[in-house]
Amino acid sequence: MIRVAEAEALCLALVKPSGAAEAVSLAQAAGRTLARAAVAQRAQPPFRSAAMDGYALRDAELAVGAVFSVIGESAAGHGWRGEVGPGQAVRIFTGAPVPEGADHVVIQEDVTREGDRITIQPNLGNGPNIRAAGGDFEAGFALDAGRALSPADLALLAAMNVAQVEVAPRPRVALLATGDELVMPGENPGPDQIIASNTFALKAMVDQAGGEGVILPIAPDRRDALEAAMAEAAQADIAVTIGGASVGDYDLVGQVGEALGMQRAFYKIAMRPGKPLIAGTLSGKPYLGLPGNPVSAVVTAHLFLLPMVRRWLGQAAVGPARMTARLGAAVGPTGPRTHYMRARLEDGIVTPFERQDSALLSVLAGANVLLERPLGDGPREAGEAVPVLLL
Amino acid sequence: MIRVAEAEALCLALVKPSGAAEAVSLAQAAGRTLARAAVAQRAQPPFRSAAMDGYALRDAELAVGAVFSVIGESAAGHGWRGEVGPGQAVRIFTGAPVPEGADHVVIQEDVTREGDRITIQPNLGNGPNIRAAGGDFEAGFALDAGRALSPADLALLAAMNVAQVEVAPRPRVALLATGDELVMPGENPGPDQIIASNTFALKAMVDQAGGEGVILPIAPDRRDALEAAMAEAAQADIAVTIGGASVGDYDLVGQVGEALGMQRAFYKIAMRPGKPLIAGTLSGKPYLGLPGNPVSAVVTAHLFLLPMVRRWLGQAAVGPARMTARLGAAVGPTGPRTHYMRARLEDGIVTPFERQDSALLSVLAGANVLLERPLGDGPREAGEAVPVLLL
Repeated sequence: MIRVAEAEALCLALVKPSGAAEAVSLAQAAGRTLARAAVAQRAQPPFRSAAMDGYALRDAELAVGAVFSVIGESAAGHGWRGEVGPGQAVRIFTGAPVPEGADHVVIQEDVTREGDRITIQPNLGNGPNIRAAGGDFEAGFALDAGRALSPADLALLAAMNVAQVEVAPRPRVALLATGDELVMPGENPGPDQIIASNTFALKAMVDQAGGEGVILPIAPDRRDALEAAMAEAAQADIAVTIGGASVGDYDLVGQVGEALGMQRAFYKIAMRPGKPLIAGTLSGKPYLGLPGNPVSAVVTAHLFLLPMVRRWLGQAAVGPARMTARLGAAVGPTGPRTHYMRARLEDGIVTPFERQDSALLSVLAGANVLLERPLGDGPREAGEAVPVLLL
Repeated sequence: MIRVAEAEALCLALVKPSGAAEAVSLAQAAGRTLARAAVAQRAQPPFRSAAMDGYALRDAELAVGAVFSVIGESAAGHGWRGEVGPGQAVRIFTGAPVPEGADHVVIQEDVTREGDRITIQPNLGNGPNIRAAGGDFEAGFALDAGRALSPADLALLAAMNVAQVEVAPRPRVALLATGDELVMPGENPGPDQIIASNTFALKAMVDQAGGEGVILPIAPDRRDALEAAMAEAAQADIAVTIGGASVGDYDLVGQVGEALGMQRAFYKIAMRPGKPLIAGTLSGKPYLGLPGNPVSAVVTAHLFLLPMVRRWLGQAAVGPARMTARLGAAVGPTGPRTHYMRARLEDGIVTPFERQDSALLSVLAGANVLLERPLGDGPREAGEAVPVLLL
């Protein structure tokens, strides 16, 4: 049994960033990962612009009681083309270009206006209420390859006048559940059967991470059928089997994998849930054999599969999101395996659920974090700082 | 100017849960919101099942050195139909049904086997290694309407043998940017023009929240064109305009809205960024007029628009996700408006960016939280506990 950190490194070593790129329009780019840097075509603001509605004039002339004659108007989209001279002011609106000659925008609440004359009032606010050209970014400013695009990134790219971006294609992740005990939801299970459930969670997780989860038909515990199904799974960019990787006589996945030329990176990790995990390559493709227990499958996918997806996409920070929380209740010592306890994090306080059986989907569905208890850790008191992984 | 909490309540009052439902298959249900409760068709596990690979036998007979004869085998999907009598054991694999008569599964590492006889070894582990029928959930167990479906929820629903779920339709949210200064990304802006950027962030945010953001063509600052565009926006489930809601002479949105019979709930909020915000109804539809500044638009959308989307979907907890963090640096007092500072949260420590101008998309794109500084708050030291909103 190897440790979690070592297993993480071995899994990531199975995957190379694809390097491929496809163009998508900004409106379709949310959550995608930049495959090439996106470069600003222009500065933002592209011109000195008013930060407030008011009057543009010369700062040096500004004094309470000073009078200026209004010689024009600069609106958003419709600038004023002349130069502001001494004693002159230009009516201006937020976002509009500040005319030449002016270096201060007096906000409209700080003046009185009669006809074309304005007079500066007392309690004059701070200036200059002008945004410098390029104050947000200069032309040539870039968002780097490997960046997963947030909503704010899309607005930033639009302001950069980048209409479409080159993003990494979504890796296809084949999800193959195995076992004679499984039927699909909506089918009529026999008395000894259960419903295949893991693949639905895994597909949603892969999709959220930027991949494309593909649920394959369930493979029965027959060597020929499993061999065909695993060969099919290896057509994808990342192949995943679920179940059949423990030590029972009916766990064929490892045997069939060997027959298909699987190169094993490791088998079994010192963690719970999730001990029986296979990683390697299958027909040259990155391959994970996840445990069949639903909670084990989801936890190991968070720790190992999603980082592989993110690495394939070319992202830099690929590990699960971790933070520090305070224990809401005392916990006992761990054994020889790192324990990922299903838990609720509420405003910085993490409380593990009482029932930690890896078969309990109802508990997993109530969890929003995993409390990470390192192997060999002693008992911990309520209030101690502990690491959690965000689900 | 009204306060943020009051504005939140007024915005939510504009929206009623739609109550509508559409059926989608589980593989398509990630992120959707249940419109009707989903009810388990069966218990999970549906039968007493083995938690480990081993031998099923009678607990009362268990002792170091005891010998049992193996009379059959229960595999996942293929149970053993008889009853386990005294001195008998059934070979069993994880997930398989435990035969009648047996109430303990001895793990295989705890026995030696010769032919059809097993002998219990010393250092016997804890039992009984049996999962009770219904131990995860009973038939009739339900996920309630209003629940936004997580990946783990999908696995849970599958295990409940729910093949498709009734979810709330996605509300269509029309996003109408206004202003002569705006052109779309990829177009050739005039010297006084900038690129429309807000709508791309807003669409991604709405989509993530479970709605369907629809970017309408930019409306120019002409009364007739704006009137047609706003009437078009009011065809959606929620209508949003961006820009044109401040006090400049060219801010037509309010005037055109009045002409279209807008019922105003409020105008202007004691917050920054985002003061000029209109909320109300337009042709009977919930309506928000967001500020034109990109950061203001995104911040007010987090506070007011997304909660309206979630209310429409029928979710219970609709407000932005908040948590408490520690200040990484001292901050000054606030003024008469609640300040939402763009900030980075790293492992519980929140540090606001130095530049807080609401025009800076490059700063917003680097933020992962908003530091909420209540109006009238005094200066705060590094290390003090403060509220943050997750972006």
